[in-house]
Amino acid sequence: MATLIRTPFFSPTTFTSSNNNNQLLLLRLHSSKQPTHSSFPNFSISCSSQSQSQSPRHRPPYIPNHIPDPSYVRIFDTTLRDGEQSPGASMTSKEKLDIARQLAKLGVDIIEAGFPAASTDDFEAVKMIANEVGNAVDDNGYVPVICGLSRCNENDIQTAWNAVKHAKRPRIHTFIATSAIHMEFKLRMSKQQVIDKARTMVAFARSLGCQDVEFSPEDAGRSDREFLYQILGEVIKAGATTLNIPDTVGITMPSEFGKLIADIKANTPGVENVIISTHCQNDLGLSTANTIEGARAGARQLEVTINGIGERAGNASLEEVVMALKCGGHIFNNLFTGINTRHIYLTSRMVEEYSGLQLQPHKALVGANAFAHESGIHQDGMLKHKGTYEIISPEDIGLERSNEAGIVLGKLSGRHAMRKRLEELGYELKDDQVESLFWRFKAVAEQKKRITDADLRALVSDEVFQAEPIWKLDDLQVTCGTLGLSTATVKLVGDDGSTHIACSVGTGPVDSAYKAVDLIVKEPATLLEYSMIAVTEGIDAIATTRVVIRGDTDQTSTHALTGESVQRTFSGTGAGMDVVVSSVKAYIAAINKMLSFK
Amino acid sequence: MATLIRTPFFSPTTFTSSNNNNQLLLLRLHSSKQPTHSSFPNFSISCSSQSQSQSPRHRPPYIPNHIPDPSYVRIFDTTLRDGEQSPGASMTSKEKLDIARQLAKLGVDIIEAGFPAASTDDFEAVKMIANEVGNAVDDNGYVPVICGLSRCNENDIQTAWNAVKHAKRPRIHTFIATSAIHMEFKLRMSKQQVIDKARTMVAFARSLGCQDVEFSPEDAGRSDREFLYQILGEVIKAGATTLNIPDTVGITMPSEFGKLIADIKANTPGVENVIISTHCQNDLGLSTANTIEGARAGARQLEVTINGIGERAGNASLEEVVMALKCGGHIFNNLFTGINTRHIYLTSRMVEEYSGLQLQPHKALVGANAFAHESGIHQDGMLKHKGTYEIISPEDIGLERSNEAGIVLGKLSGRHAMRKRLEELGYELKDDQVESLFWRFKAVAEQKKRITDADLRALVSDEVFQAEPIWKLDDLQVTCGTLGLSTATVKLVGDDGSTHIACSVGTGPVDSAYKAVDLIVKEPATLLEYSMIAVTEGIDAIATTRVVIRGDTDQTSTHALTGESVQRTFSGTGAGMDVVVSSVKAYIAAINKMLSFK
Repeated sequence: MATLIRTPFFSPTTFTSSNNNNQLLLLRLHSSKQPTHSSFPNFSISCSSQSQSQSPRHRPPYIPNHIPDPSYVRIFDTTLRDGEQSPGASMTSKEKLDIARQLAKLGVDIIEAGFPAASTDDFEAVKMIANEVGNAVDDNGYVPVICGLSRCNENDIQTAWNAVKHAKRPRIHTFIATSAIHMEFKLRMSKQQVIDKARTMVAFARSLGCQDVEFSPEDAGRSDREFLYQILGEVIKAGATTLNIPDTVGITMPSEFGKLIADIKANTPGVENVIISTHCQNDLGLSTANTIEGARAGARQLEVTINGIGERAGNASLEEVVMALKCGGHIFNNLFTGINTRHIYLTSRMVEEYSGLQLQPHKALVGANAFAHESGIHQDGMLKHKGTYEIISPEDIGLERSNEAGIVLGKLSGRHAMRKRLEELGYELKDDQVESLFWRFKAVAEQKKRITDADLRALVSDEVFQAEPIWKLDDLQVTCGTLGLSTATVKLVGDDGSTHIACSVGTGPVDSAYKAVDLIVKEPATLLEYSMIAVTEGIDAIATTRVVIRGDTDQTSTHALTGESVQRTFSGTGAGMDVVVSSVKAYIAAINKMLSFK
Repeated sequence: MATLIRTPFFSPTTFTSSNNNNQLLLLRLHSSKQPTHSSFPNFSISCSSQSQSQSPRHRPPYIPNHIPDPSYVRIFDTTLRDGEQSPGASMTSKEKLDIARQLAKLGVDIIEAGFPAASTDDFEAVKMIANEVGNAVDDNGYVPVICGLSRCNENDIQTAWNAVKHAKRPRIHTFIATSAIHMEFKLRMSKQQVIDKARTMVAFARSLGCQDVEFSPEDAGRSDREFLYQILGEVIKAGATTLNIPDTVGITMPSEFGKLIADIKANTPGVENVIISTHCQNDLGLSTANTIEGARAGARQLEVTINGIGERAGNASLEEVVMALKCGGHIFNNLFTGINTRHIYLTSRMVEEYSGLQLQPHKALVGANAFAHESGIHQDGMLKHKGTYEIISPEDIGLERSNEAGIVLGKLSGRHAMRKRLEELGYELKDDQVESLFWRFKAVAEQKKRITDADLRALVSDEVFQAEPIWKLDDLQVTCGTLGLSTATVKLVGDDGSTHIACSVGTGPVDSAYKAVDLIVKEPATLLEYSMIAVTEGIDAIATTRVVIRGDTDQTSTHALTGESVQRTFSGTGAGMDVVVSSVKAYIAAINKMLSFK
């Protein structure tokens, strides 16, 4: 039984006021003495970057199998590989390149750009990213490693190498399953066969001239521990520089995953010469916790995706893992990453847009409600500062809230004001993009008094974040209602400038308009998903529609894990103040994306 | 360094085939010997209920401050209190009652039905749930505890008691903040004042005749450890039976939260006479992990919400916590809950519908992609059973997948077939509801060849899960397109049977139709959110629209934590094959909900 000790009413506190009136008052509390029973004398009450360390720490130089600073944790982003394999999340090469550029701004250490052997499109996208993003060295010498995934066979590895080899820092990531259930039912191989395959394929990757080879024992979370030590020891001898430990089915508990990493660090021969990595699926909602427990146990590379996207329940999310490491610095011996957190919000929006995987309002950090306490209410005087309920300043992740009145821009705002606000929101646009956007902006401002940040984002998505147009919507006219017999007439312009008109009836305005589009485009497609969202105040807001379609022709890629042939699906978005117009634009965007894959 | 030991290729395995051809082959693997370096000799490779224990375990009898079975963990659901306080998630009393009934089917031990002092509506809803759900004792003697939240003052506590006292097992939950930042900036009270207030108010609750009193030190995660032991010891002496430890701002790491619970168990005088509870917010995506670590450290009540909804990034989600405890049984000394997991999916859908908080496709367990590997692809022969990538059978959470062909019902299906499928999906409808639903069903089947489960769910939501109608849509006629000048004419029927017609122009078909509705209803309302979703194949699917509005009149409730006056917002949904019709129905539903709060 504890002896109760009275502590003084307030412990000494230090206040750090940040440089913006709207920002939080950041406050850090130091206990005046060591509490008798706690090993956490110095806990955080906020997660501001300033409060976590005395001086900024720098990303150490890149050496494949060694990190000079033992506190540095590499962030390996697999949004473009594992994330893109989610249903409906297929992206064009241009979209992938945009995201890769954004990931470089964010400062991720490694970009897994794709699975080059999946299809020609995948190969070309990885190659383009390797050539462009993989050679854009910044003033501090930073350039992301560009990684290509491959199964354990010569063809995959050769293809991955061909795709990444022109990057300044190319990496091949190869994997083979090591759990009994996978070896028996998927591979039909014995343990010895699996070890031999892994060893020879890692050696093959090195023989191509690749100095940076990652190996993953798939389904490590359900693999026999002793077998893991053995195969990992063998691939280290064969030249692997990073060993990634995937909880492929998301079944491990945080303490269990931490123990797995600690056991591997303690028992694998030669482990001191390689980097241990985590890859945690989210099937039980534990991926973020498992990942940071892995780091606590000694992993120094964490595989994550933006928004936590990925197959099934997705992966550990970059933003949660990075911010948890920041907030839990006192638990994690001040581990740190090279991520510039102020680029998180825009990256999240871009991935949401391109992948079509919309976030729930209560998604941690980047969901619409993550920083909202109540909707549209002025807080009364009671709460003297937001630190009572907010541990992270939204500005820390790049979310610039519009001011109290919510008025950002209006019909009298000029080109310069619009561009300035877009830059504040993180968009860097070319002159011609600003020009075409400005005309859309003026058209909206004619009808809508206040143009909010959400409106601007919707316009940028619609105008800038689009596949190369093949078909364009020229005109649309619809009648509909409860009487049925909806009728739509559409006029499309092809890439040769020709115009085409068709009309159709349907069960509703969108159905009739899509049928009219089909009559012109003549490319059989099945609509798989349809959704629309408008989050600004007033129904005169811009609505963004998203659709996912599947073509009836064979557009397939190979699934990395299962080896199955997967039929591609394509998402498209469209924005407009008329929901039917935005719906048609989204459909045409998806069709354009589908046609660009031919 | 470990000595490598060769284990035989396959360890002895046991196979359990479940009773349905479509279900997973469940497989459990037992190591043939204790591995040298692992403390997890017997890890799970799937989470089926059968595999977790030899014989079914039963919910122990309910005693407020004691659980006869040390392995039993109580589930405290606060969807109706903490969840409902999310922006836009206001629910009518009828909706709350529906959810409470569903929570009782799910078998939650405690339902926190609301914060009765917030407003008259909140009081009435809690009272109705206490009277009805709180007295529906089942054959096994199970009936949920009905709990009302109150701040630490006599009025709140008296009001909460008045609301819950007619339940068979009523509970009062009172709280006061204990962190330095909250005591200084929110309460403006000293530590001693906070202790005195907590002690006297817990005693006051007991003095009313309430035998079951829960106390929470708000922001415990950032509170001084010694102060926590002290105040908790005092409220135990005053008669508290459950001590809930909230990580109010979601800042703790899993190991840290586990340590907090362990420290409290070790150092609080009298703690052996009470139940310790967790309440973890999700600001860093760690709420599920923190909650289960709390259980591992000795907490025997876990506060959760369906879908993890709640303010900001929400709470620990019931489904993740319950399934993680199941899957991690070997880590958690076989802790178990009384939850009937087969009701999870339908409960999730109902809460999604009523709260209006739509889930992201990669939400663990209940998201649209949680059990999907690829979209619309027949798996080839390679994967011999789904257990290679699935650890939970979807049927375990009540998700009955339609068969391969996806055909469920068509235009020739009768009333009986429709009702049967609805029952399979978990809906229990009254005869008149089945009747009105059947006519809608036939109308849809006339136009759409295949009626999928998603279509059926959309129809049920639209037809059954609605506020009492005050206004009803009779007719609607719209023209719109790229030319602008959208025009809508609407005909509404009031609750007195009178019909009203109005027309309006607008920036799009929805804008013009909503303006026409406004002309008739004459209740000023601001549209805050608008979204639409159709997830079935083909654009002839039923689209469900959701809107959130805020009235311009004063419809306020008191926020439990901040004490602020919060203006209510109301969501409404509508379904139809015409997107404009479904949009108008959603708007009218939200208006009806708003009017019912007057």
